[in-house]
Amino acid sequence: MAYFDNAATTRISDAALDAYNRASTAWWGNPSSLHKEGLKARKRLEEDRSEIARLLRVEPSTLTFTSCATESDGIILENYLWAQQPGDIVIPAIEHSAVTGYARLLKRLGWNIVTVDAPGGFLDPKEIASVLTERTRLVCCMLVNNVVGTIQPVEEIVQVVRKQEHAIGRKIHVHTDATQALGKIPMDLHALGVDSAAFSAHKLHGPKGVGLLYNKDAGITALSRGGEQEKALRPGTENLPGIEAMTVAIADAVEHLETHAATYRALNAIVRQRLSTCPHIHFVTPEEHSSPAILTISNDKLPSEVLTRMLYDKDYCVSSGSACSNNAKGHQGSILMAMRQEPSIAKGAIRISFGTDNTTEEVEGLCDTLLSILGGA
Amino acid sequence: MAYFDNAATTRISDAALDAYNRASTAWWGNPSSLHKEGLKARKRLEEDRSEIARLLRVEPSTLTFTSCATESDGIILENYLWAQQPGDIVIPAIEHSAVTGYARLLKRLGWNIVTVDAPGGFLDPKEIASVLTERTRLVCCMLVNNVVGTIQPVEEIVQVVRKQEHAIGRKIHVHTDATQALGKIPMDLHALGVDSAAFSAHKLHGPKGVGLLYNKDAGITALSRGGEQEKALRPGTENLPGIEAMTVAIADAVEHLETHAATYRALNAIVRQRLSTCPHIHFVTPEEHSSPAILTISNDKLPSEVLTRMLYDKDYCVSSGSACSNNAKGHQGSILMAMRQEPSIAKGAIRISFGTDNTTEEVEGLCDTLLSILGGA
Repeated sequence: MAYFDNAATTRISDAALDAYNRASTAWWGNPSSLHKEGLKARKRLEEDRSEIARLLRVEPSTLTFTSCATESDGIILENYLWAQQPGDIVIPAIEHSAVTGYARLLKRLGWNIVTVDAPGGFLDPKEIASVLTERTRLVCCMLVNNVVGTIQPVEEIVQVVRKQEHAIGRKIHVHTDATQALGKIPMDLHALGVDSAAFSAHKLHGPKGVGLLYNKDAGITALSRGGEQEKALRPGTENLPGIEAMTVAIADAVEHLETHAATYRALNAIVRQRLSTCPHIHFVTPEEHSSPAILTISNDKLPSEVLTRMLYDKDYCVSSGSACSNNAKGHQGSILMAMRQEPSIAKGAIRISFGTDNTTEEVEGLCDTLLSILGGA
Repeated sequence: MAYFDNAATTRISDAALDAYNRASTAWWGNPSSLHKEGLKARKRLEEDRSEIARLLRVEPSTLTFTSCATESDGIILENYLWAQQPGDIVIPAIEHSAVTGYARLLKRLGWNIVTVDAPGGFLDPKEIASVLTERTRLVCCMLVNNVVGTIQPVEEIVQVVRKQEHAIGRKIHVHTDATQALGKIPMDLHALGVDSAAFSAHKLHGPKGVGLLYNKDAGITALSRGGEQEKALRPGTENLPGIEAMTVAIADAVEHLETHAATYRALNAIVRQRLSTCPHIHFVTPEEHSSPAILTISNDKLPSEVLTRMLYDKDYCVSSGSACSNNAKGHQGSILMAMRQEPSIAKGAIRISFGTDNTTEEVEGLCDTLLSILGGA
């Protein structure tokens, strides 16, 4: 079986799984306990935090361990449930449902949710600038779109937000869901200038059930639902074995970024080159300013689900959308519509996403199969 | 080192860790993906749900996989953020902070939080009945208190709530945090009659970062923060390896409940018998209607922290409170005050909590050490 759905989830690496096992026996105490097992676990937890901080080139105090990127996004968005006076929140239509999912409740509580499209897959900083008001409190802007892989101009968007902050004399928080960016494209959180960012371990050959939140905005107050763990931003006993495994996965993703990215680019180039011979295939992911790990294509012969199923019968795993929404029909379609793609493009789209263990042979096999189904050389 | 802080966390069992490893290689797909790896994972996820349902004697559809008991509690409490018209919520003062932590936000949104004490460690159904009003929407009532181990009269409390429901002609949800009950005392969710219950895997020799929510109230609407996983009650990619390990841990806890409970009772009895010779020691946990796995004692010679530290120096791990709040000073004290204990009792209290791997020798050693510190035979 050849697996090309690494944007949905990846197989945990042997090194990360080893780390999970080691931690499960060596540091299994509750990091909040004040006895030997607890203090050992606490020390290790903080060592992991420092190690990830070093890898991401940020301060350890900005990092909070969570259970997934959805939860990391949620910690930031839930902060606005506390507001005495609701204002505007900018949520681009191409955001992951972990972000857009809050719109309904925030609206209920009086917030004005401002939606912005992304023609061609990219947000336009000028359009973001045009929707900022005196009431804007939060701007969300994912770094790499999960459906087509486009890299958003986050740095430029932060700049227009900072200008607006200056004009209105009040903080505007910028949050980026960077789940599909870490380990796929170079990323410098300081240069981006965002206030917060969400990450997930299982998208980069780490464990499931473990995520990370970067946040440097001291004004964020969590929903405060429980114990005081993680500076009360994320209550619940820390999952140290999972965190340990995530640390190993992030180290691999960051330290071998160039090697991994070169692999993704090479595999991506093979698919683009081979499939360009088929008149029924259209490349949805732009060649420029996109993650090399994601390549979404469309076809005018078969609906996504049918094509996905035919590939599946030949032992190839690709996605007919984002797995986070496959059980919620129409999400991928709505993202593609927000990118101002034709409905026919959305109808026949599949996402091919690469992992560190994909091989040239697998990619050639996928192309052979696609071409034999859709026609072409 | 002898570990007597199993109410804070337990060491994962070899069988549960094996299950985690097996699942990490056998079922690592995203259960929401529609291809082979995804469908394999989905099938296994539902098998795990059915197995836990069988063990707990409930319907699989009532079970939601979460990241911890804190999150399970939160899913129920967050439901009330949606309310058009806030009413009353009953939160006993002895509840875990995963429940009490919501009081501040709910108050902000207009809810009236009704607090009830638990004299001697037990809630009184009559007192609960006396605070129910026409506006009551939710009653929280933990099953086993985490600080002293007392078993709350949940079944009787549900009965008074159902009576009130009948009187006002409207649903009142009863939620129980059963984290310290599962695998420690016999538990029948149907007989209890609660609408929902929260559980955690790492308290019963399962993995950290995995929890469970039982809920049979179709009226619960999650905060809806993300994808549609777990019927939208808990978005985020499912942690199947963790769920697999939890399933094994719950199977062991439920199927060997009598054996485990007999061990706890035997160890508990040794401590009670040996320490009863010391005039400086007072048993805070009542002998009747308490979990055999938790024994909280107090002393009038040394503050909790000092005694805990002295035991720690002799390689014994006990708790000077609930680990969930050790970094938030005073929580254990406030729980004990809610039990109407003297301030001096709270000052010198330590919690001894047993796990399946504790031995008679360890317990004898703990008693020897306590008696040599505090005096007694």
